[in-house]
Amino acid sequence: MKSLRERIVSDGNVLSSNILKVDSFLNHQMDPELLFEIAKEFEKRFKGTGIKKIVTIEASGIAIAIMIGFVLKVPVVFAKKKKPSTMIDFYSSSVFSFTKNTNYDICISKEFLGPEDEVLVVDDFLATGSAINGVMDLISQAQAKLIGIGIVIEKGSQNGGKILRNKGIRLESLAIVKIENNDIKFLNDD
Amino acid sequence: MKSLRERIVSDGNVLSSNILKVDSFLNHQMDPELLFEIAKEFEKRFKGTGIKKIVTIEASGIAIAIMIGFVLKVPVVFAKKKKPSTMIDFYSSSVFSFTKNTNYDICISKEFLGPEDEVLVVDDFLATGSAINGVMDLISQAQAKLIGIGIVIEKGSQNGGKILRNKGIRLESLAIVKIENNDIKFLNDD
Repeated sequence: MKSLRERIVSDGNVLSSNILKVDSFLNHQMDPELLFEIAKEFEKRFKGTGIKKIVTIEASGIAIAIMIGFVLKVPVVFAKKKKPSTMIDFYSSSVFSFTKNTNYDICISKEFLGPEDEVLVVDDFLATGSAINGVMDLISQAQAKLIGIGIVIEKGSQNGGKILRNKGIRLESLAIVKIENNDIKFLNDD
Repeated sequence: MKSLRERIVSDGNVLSSNILKVDSFLNHQMDPELLFEIAKEFEKRFKGTGIKKIVTIEASGIAIAIMIGFVLKVPVVFAKKKKPSTMIDFYSSSVFSFTKNTNYDICISKEFLGPEDEVLVVDDFLATGSAINGVMDLISQAQAKLIGIGIVIEKGSQNGGKILRNKGIRLESLAIVKIENNDIKFLNDD
């Protein structure tokens, strides 16, 4: 997605060979017009696949997910990192956080994910894929159908994307980035 | 907002005199079309006030905030509950959580909030107002201008809304609810 790649180049900050900061437009401050364009791009890529629900994980996936839900006219569910006291019956999965070197649980109420759901999973970033794997585990527990995964920025230097594609899962990443000598390289051009 | 009140009555669950569950359309599963309508209502109510930025707090405020940002064509910033390791220079404030009986910190990078910002603060719920007060503290530290506060559901049985209005702050709550004998009553009708 050309406009996204241009925005990453103009407003992204390379902090190290592994850290690309995009908090001025994607995951702290957010540009709603860009998110709408991103949603339209996912609509195009997943056209005809029969998506009936968008699932993401709090917090930075929510803005993208709601825009895609708005464009596709389907409901959006976000996996919670803390189970509310009012949530009685739920699916849960454990996710390992590499940045914090610890596990955390995510959960979705059984009311909002079931065998009738055909799901697109979306998130802002994909690196090792541990959060996405947690969400896929919830979908599997609910016996819902995973249509595919939509990612805004995939880190091409980590293997999360490769593992998902090798499993035969349809993964659409709008920008696949790699940092080389403090420069941002894109591994995709469509 | 009539369509919101109707949705609260049809899909909301009264769990106790103090707990109204709206997780089927507002804060776990979310209805993007309803959120768009909500955003249009806030646009109408704050017309001509010169809003230049939307600020909310993760996680359940994000979906509403991004829709309002989309309608008003302004950027959205969400206060984070955990400071990312890459965030060096930031405003922070402590918020007391009544449900968890503990304090947590919220933060916004200094890059994304400053004296030039004219801000609408939005959130899904207002009860005691502790989270909103934390966000207002960040705005005050940044010397930004608070235009007003937009809330989807205000709990009329708690005093957060009253305190804010008594301070002369412009607060627009789309539904002000009170639970009486397990029934949902609305304290506003516009």
